[in-house]
Amino acid sequence: MTHFADRLAAAVRAKGTALCVGLDPRRESLPKSVRDRHHDTPDGTAVAYEEFCLRVLDIVTPRVGVVKPQSAFFEACGPAGVVALQRVMRRARQLGLFTILDAKRGDIASTAAAYATAAFDVMDADAVTVNPYLGRDAVEPLITAARRSGRGLFVLVRTSNPGAGLFQDLNCDGRPLYQHVAAAVAFWNGENLGACGYGDVGAVVGANHPNELKLLREQLPQVWFLVPGYGAQGGTAADVRAAFRADGLGAVVNSSRGVTFPFPPDDADWEAAIKIAVDRAAVELALDRTG
Amino acid sequence: MTHFADRLAAAVRAKGTALCVGLDPRRESLPKSVRDRHHDTPDGTAVAYEEFCLRVLDIVTPRVGVVKPQSAFFEACGPAGVVALQRVMRRARQLGLFTILDAKRGDIASTAAAYATAAFDVMDADAVTVNPYLGRDAVEPLITAARRSGRGLFVLVRTSNPGAGLFQDLNCDGRPLYQHVAAAVAFWNGENLGACGYGDVGAVVGANHPNELKLLREQLPQVWFLVPGYGAQGGTAADVRAAFRADGLGAVVNSSRGVTFPFPPDDADWEAAIKIAVDRAAVELALDRTG
Repeated sequence: MTHFADRLAAAVRAKGTALCVGLDPRRESLPKSVRDRHHDTPDGTAVAYEEFCLRVLDIVTPRVGVVKPQSAFFEACGPAGVVALQRVMRRARQLGLFTILDAKRGDIASTAAAYATAAFDVMDADAVTVNPYLGRDAVEPLITAARRSGRGLFVLVRTSNPGAGLFQDLNCDGRPLYQHVAAAVAFWNGENLGACGYGDVGAVVGANHPNELKLLREQLPQVWFLVPGYGAQGGTAADVRAAFRADGLGAVVNSSRGVTFPFPPDDADWEAAIKIAVDRAAVELALDRTG
Repeated sequence: MTHFADRLAAAVRAKGTALCVGLDPRRESLPKSVRDRHHDTPDGTAVAYEEFCLRVLDIVTPRVGVVKPQSAFFEACGPAGVVALQRVMRRARQLGLFTILDAKRGDIASTAAAYATAAFDVMDADAVTVNPYLGRDAVEPLITAARRSGRGLFVLVRTSNPGAGLFQDLNCDGRPLYQHVAAAVAFWNGENLGACGYGDVGAVVGANHPNELKLLREQLPQVWFLVPGYGAQGGTAADVRAAFRADGLGAVVNSSRGVTFPFPPDDADWEAAIKIAVDRAAVELALDRTG
C-alpha cells in the first residue's frame, strides 16, 4: 500500500503542476446545451452535474493530477446527486486522478467513523476535508480509518472566506486559534510520514493570507497544504508561492469556478474555454515555478 | 408561517417533555430480527435502518415531540441511505414531530446555501446542526435560507465529547472559545424572535458540563439549546436542569442509544424495551420537572 503523501506527490509530479481542479457544479452556471437537456428537478440537475463533471474530468486530466469535488452541490440534488457524485469520483479514479472529497465533515467517535465510511468506502476518495471544532475525538477516528487504506485528511486550519477570522483569528493564549489547530495537525501528521517526507494529515490554508501561509509553511514542514482562494477568489500565483517547500512540493492549489466555469452559459465552445483556463492555471502553478 | 421557535415550543409542550429522540442506527445494534431480513450491503443496511427507524418513530411519537436523525449513519450506506433518511424524515413530519437533522454542516457562501437546500428542501428538516469554525459567512447563508421557510439552526457551541476542550476551551482574550461562539449565536438569534421569546439560531451545549450549561443559560436567555450527552453518554436529569428557563422551556435534551437501543440484538421484545426506555426518559425530562 503506497503512503497517502507519496501518492499525492506522484500525482502532482506526473502532471508537473500543483493545480487542483475543484468541481463545484451549479445549475445556473452550466453550459446551456448541457442544462437544457435535463429537467430542472433535483434528479435532472444531478444528471446534468454528472454529465458536465465527467466532461470536465476528460478535459483536465492531461493537465492536472488532483481534483476536488464539492459534496454540497451534489447533496442538494438528493439521492440522485449522491449517485452522480459516486460516478464522478469513480471516473476520476479510473483516469488516475487523486481525489479530495470536499465535505468538511466533523463529528465524534462512531459518527466520525460513519463519515469515514461515506468518504473512503462509498465515495472511494483519497482524502476528505475535515472540520476540527469538535476536537480530538472528531479527528482521530477519521485518521484511524484513513490509515487503514492509505487515505488522508485535510483539516481546516485557516480558510479563505472573508468571515473566517471571526473565530479562527481569536487570540488564544497569545496565538490565533488557527495556530492551535495547526499545532494539532502537525502532531497527528507526524505520526505517519511517507517516503517523500510528508504525512497524511494535511491542512487547508487560504491563498489570500500570504503572510500566514508563509508562517504556517515554516511551522508545518511535513504537512501537505490544500490551498483554496486562488483564481476567482482573488489569490494570485505570487500569493501562493509561500505554500511550497523548496522542492516545489507541499501544496495543491485549488481553482473551481476559474477553470471550470470560464464561459457564459450560452457559449457553445465552453469545452475550449475550460481547456484554455486549465492550461493557463496549470502553467502558473507549474512545479518549476513554485519552489 | 409560524416561527421556528414557536413551533419547537409547541412540539415540546404537546408531549410535556424536553426529550428529543436521536436516531443513530448502527447495523451491529439493530434487533437481530430486523438485521437478518436485509443483506449486509450498503443497500440492504439502508433498508434495515429505514425499517428500524420508522418503527422507532411509531413507538416514540406518543411520548416525544422532537427527533434528531444522524445523517452520517445514513450517508455511510450511500445513495440508498439518503433515500432511507428522506423517508424517515418524511414519516417524522407526517407524525407531527419536529425534526432536527444532525449533519454538523459548515461551508461558505453558495456552498452553504447548497447545504441549506439539502437540509431544508431535500430532507425537509425543521432544523439542522451547524459547525461554526468557518465563521460568519458559513453561518449566515444558512440563517437566510432557514428564515425563508420558518426553519432554524443549532450551532455547535460546547459539545459533549471527551476531546471537545482541545479547541473549544482555549482561552481567547480572557474567555473560552465557545463563549465567543455563544456571543455570535446570541447576536444572530436576536435578529428574529418568535412570540414565545426565543429565536431561530439555537446552540448545542453538552449535558456533561453543568456549570457551563448554567452560565450559558444565563447569557443566552432567548436561545433554544440542543443538549447532547444525556443518558448513555453520562449526563443525568439533574445535570441538564440548568439548561432550562423558569418556564420549563428553552432546551431539548437528546438521547440516542439510551432510548433506541436499550436491548441486546437478540431480544425479541425490543419494541417493548424501547417503549419502557422512552417512557422513563420522557418522565425524567417532563416539563414540570425542568423549570
